[in-house]
Amino acid sequence: MIDVIVAGPRGKMGTAALEMIAEEENLNLVGCIDRKNDQSRVKDIEGLPAFDALIYEDAEQCLRETKADVLIDLTTPEFGYKHTKASLNHGVRPVVGTTGFTEEQLQEITELCEENKLGAVIAPNFATGAVLMMQFAKWAAKHFPDVEIIEKHHDQKLDAPSGTAVKTAQLIKEERKSKRQGHPDEKETLQGARGADMDGMKIHSMRLPGLVAHQEVVFGGEGQTLTIKHDSMNRASFMSGVKLSCEKVMEINTLVYGLEHLLE
Amino acid sequence: MIDVIVAGPRGKMGTAALEMIAEEENLNLVGCIDRKNDQSRVKDIEGLPAFDALIYEDAEQCLRETKADVLIDLTTPEFGYKHTKASLNHGVRPVVGTTGFTEEQLQEITELCEENKLGAVIAPNFATGAVLMMQFAKWAAKHFPDVEIIEKHHDQKLDAPSGTAVKTAQLIKEERKSKRQGHPDEKETLQGARGADMDGMKIHSMRLPGLVAHQEVVFGGEGQTLTIKHDSMNRASFMSGVKLSCEKVMEINTLVYGLEHLLE
Amino acid sequence: MIDVIVAGPRGKMGTAALEMIAEEENLNLVGCIDRKNDQSRVKDIEGLPAFDALIYEDAEQCLRETKADVLIDLTTPEFGYKHTKASLNHGVRPVVGTTGFTEEQLQEITELCEENKLGAVIAPNFATGAVLMMQFAKWAAKHFPDVEIIEKHHDQKLDAPSGTAVKTAQLIKEERKSKRQGHPDEKETLQGARGADMDGMKIHSMRLPGLVAHQEVVFGGEGQTLTIKHDSMNRASFMSGVKLSCEKVMEINTLVYGLEHLLE
Amino acid sequence: MIDVIVAGPRGKMGTAALEMIAEEENLNLVGCIDRKNDQSRVKDIEGLPAFDALIYEDAEQCLRETKADVLIDLTTPEFGYKHTKASLNHGVRPVVGTTGFTEEQLQEITELCEENKLGAVIAPNFATGAVLMMQFAKWAAKHFPDVEIIEKHHDQKLDAPSGTAVKTAQLIKEERKSKRQGHPDEKETLQGARGADMDGMKIHSMRLPGLVAHQEVVFGGEGQTLTIKHDSMNRASFMSGVKLSCEKVMEINTLVYGLEHLLE
Repeated sequence: MIDVIVAGPRGKMGTAALEMIAEEENLNLVGCIDRKNDQSRVKDIEGLPAFDALIYEDAEQCLRETKADVLIDLTTPEFGYKHTKASLNHGVRPVVGTTGFTEEQLQEITELCEENKLGAVIAPNFATGAVLMMQFAKWAAKHFPDVEIIEKHHDQKLDAPSGTAVKTAQLIKEERKSKRQGHPDEKETLQGARGADMDGMKIHSMRLPGLVAHQEVVFGGEGQTLTIKHDSMNRASFMSGVKLSCEKVMEINTLVYGLEHLLE
Repeated sequence: MIDVIVAGPRGKMGTAALEMIAEEENLNLVGCIDRKNDQSRVKDIEGLPAFDALIYEDAEQCLRETKADVLIDLTTPEFGYKHTKASLNHGVRPVVGTTGFTEEQLQEITELCEENKLGAVIAPNFATGAVLMMQFAKWAAKHFPDVEIIEKHHDQKLDAPSGTAVKTAQLIKEERKSKRQGHPDEKETLQGARGADMDGMKIHSMRLPGLVAHQEVVFGGEGQTLTIKHDSMNRASFMSGVKLSCEKVMEINTLVYGLEHLLE
Repeated sequence: MIDVIVAGPRGKMGTAALEMIAEEENLNLVGCIDRKNDQSRVKDIEGLPAFDALIYEDAEQCLRETKADVLIDLTTPEFGYKHTKASLNHGVRPVVGTTGFTEEQLQEITELCEENKLGAVIAPNFATGAVLMMQFAKWAAKHFPDVEIIEKHHDQKLDAPSGTAVKTAQLIKEERKSKRQGHPDEKETLQGARGADMDGMKIHSMRLPGLVAHQEVVFGGEGQTLTIKHDSMNRASFMSGVKLSCEKVMEINTLVYGLEHLLE
Repeated sequence: MIDVIVAGPRGKMGTAALEMIAEEENLNLVGCIDRKNDQSRVKDIEGLPAFDALIYEDAEQCLRETKADVLIDLTTPEFGYKHTKASLNHGVRPVVGTTGFTEEQLQEITELCEENKLGAVIAPNFATGAVLMMQFAKWAAKHFPDVEIIEKHHDQKLDAPSGTAVKTAQLIKEERKSKRQGHPDEKETLQGARGADMDGMKIHSMRLPGLVAHQEVVFGGEGQTLTIKHDSMNRASFMSGVKLSCEKVMEINTLVYGLEHLLE
């Protein structure tokens, strides 16, 4: 049984984490860190699951009083950074979902891990399937230099291409020589048809009502194509990665950055 | 049994037509029209199937001597136009694959059909599956105004988007009010990500080795998507439409333009 | 503006209907019929949207007092049948989601419609996309006799194949000659690999966590395949059909059975 | 430049290998081993590419006279075994496509490699994309225990499921605990709907005209699915693996069994 604190319980990801903990037998909620509702019970806050655990506005107090094994932090980079340091200083292993830490901060956290012989996991993306998709794409790119990405999202999404598509393309770029794809003389009779260009790769963004969050990475070779596809329906897809991180962080005594290193 | 002439037997489409006729019990080859090899037998020309039928350089002579039911013309707009008129004047029903006839020419052919009480079929696209895809898309557009098209071809294709994608978008456009899709404030962080725009619809063109000719039309509505997909592996996909046209042209005594009118 | 009553507001479909009405400008909720909470306001019932309209346990009273245009019935066949008759007797046009009416009951409702010169819509399936998929499949089957269906659902579904897959196969069966597909000598080295057989067609049922409700109908012909795919994410996908029915039922004065007849 | 011999040049795979060599600048054909046409030139045999290289009926003579670097063997297990041994005894590295060698034969070849300090590659499957698909599936199975496979082939295929599907399932089986998937109480209302069962996994086989050779491995988890898909259009898809093997076999001095070990 792993005793956990959740920081940010009222956020979308935080609430999803509480729901996941409610269903997992080997995770036990011992407290929450939040900006309001000090000393209320989780079950008394609207929209949160029926836990008896207390809410603390003071992170230090929470860490001191609950004697947790793991802190799951799903707040902001600013609070996440403070919580991570406080956590390690109290002997609690942090599992943090963020893209916002600087190199300097990561270095500092690495040192704190080593001093305290404690594990820590910081991950920009906890969706196991999406992270595996990117690792497979990286591997396939060694053998199939021709590749295009199509990502599909609901039509309320503001930016195109998606962050995951760009990240996937960057990983592919590390594995292959820069290559301008398609026929050298190809022409767009309608501008934009061939999509966005990144190092010669093409990225296409579809936006429609009824879509959720989907991505296909299509590799082409002589006489064959190899496609890796991830479909995400809801936030539950992130929680398998949070759960895995809680388990693995107990076995390590250093900082692991990126879920991919826990998926090998 | 329908007796047929094939014009253009050495072209890719013409040869595929001969191979189709060789396998169809109710089609019988009685002659070919070509620019060379006058009075040779088809079987003696390299690359053509083992038919005894004669090749004629003179179309009039071929029509006169073979007493065919149907002329399958897979040549060029210029020759196709001449052959179509000669054919109707000799009591032979033409089945012509072309996009190149003018409104005036079509009007003239319609009149010839009526005068001679003969059917004729002229089709820009004989691929049954592709034509059905376009008809389904046209229908779906009445109920799902949000739609994107992704077409995928081998990387030797020069133009993007494909003719079929543009044609599909035009048919959809006829059925729905012009609509700018996606979020009003959406932004491309990489130019071209959202594809080509046609009346608010987006078209994406993928080009990779290993692909042949594929198209998906994706309609999105609240909580659902409806997708129509056509995958074409080779020229054989066109021949079901040629065969159907040969059969149907015997039952009509007017000009039918477009395979869709034979697929209802 | 169309004034509507919803019968069965606390059911999953009924609640989804209320949420749809809340967002549609041309639909106006004037009352609900339910088995409890008589004379409460909708907004006071947990889980229902903030409507002021009253709930009635007595259907007759509701129909009499609210002077609605349309009754949306999403209850059971038994109650649906009673509500439909009462509705037509009060001059209110019924829109009913059910598969449970007998031929005799449908005949009776048809007569009531004609007597009262009122429209009625009864539909086993209100998902516009799914109904279109079935219509397209029926059409395609005329030209592509070889077809297989793969339907994919979450792993909590008890029956395989799904009702929609069976219904699709039945519609296809009406359009083609019975045909045993696959190679005449094909062998299953693992029993069940080739799926369920229905009139020679094969149906495959996939069940996995993370799936919602998906179906692909794949037609194969020489050198090509044509695929029609419907993906349903949630109950919202049914509501476009309910909304369409409310609008169309105002324009007709007979019974329409099946959403497909409103989609032409 | 690598000098190669091809054994079995008139077989489908052998001819595809010759066509690949004709396009690869760093591969050079120095001879062929075949059961007929001794001392003819390759270019004089119908259906083969325009190479000047000689054909030998006697494998020993070919190996002795051509001084090749690599022997590509695409014959039968019986001849392949003889050729492999002869090859290693003449200092030529074998690249063999077969599933038919016994454990004992593989052991013998391993010893010959070590004695002669020569590399050898024996692979049941040279399709790079298919082999990667299987490796990705093996990896994903560690994190997603729920998985189904759907493989799609032309309707001339006799056996179901395909060898690749069974092989994929076996690899997955090695990585996860045996698991009965689907709802414990699920019922087939049409027998076979849920497909073939292998260790609780389900395998579905689609057979239609117009399909070539396709496989999807679908992993499901809470709120997400991860799909790995391989589409093979023709024999060219195998040739990237043959080419890679020719290059890699020059760098090793032991037996490598399975293309996957060259793809890491």
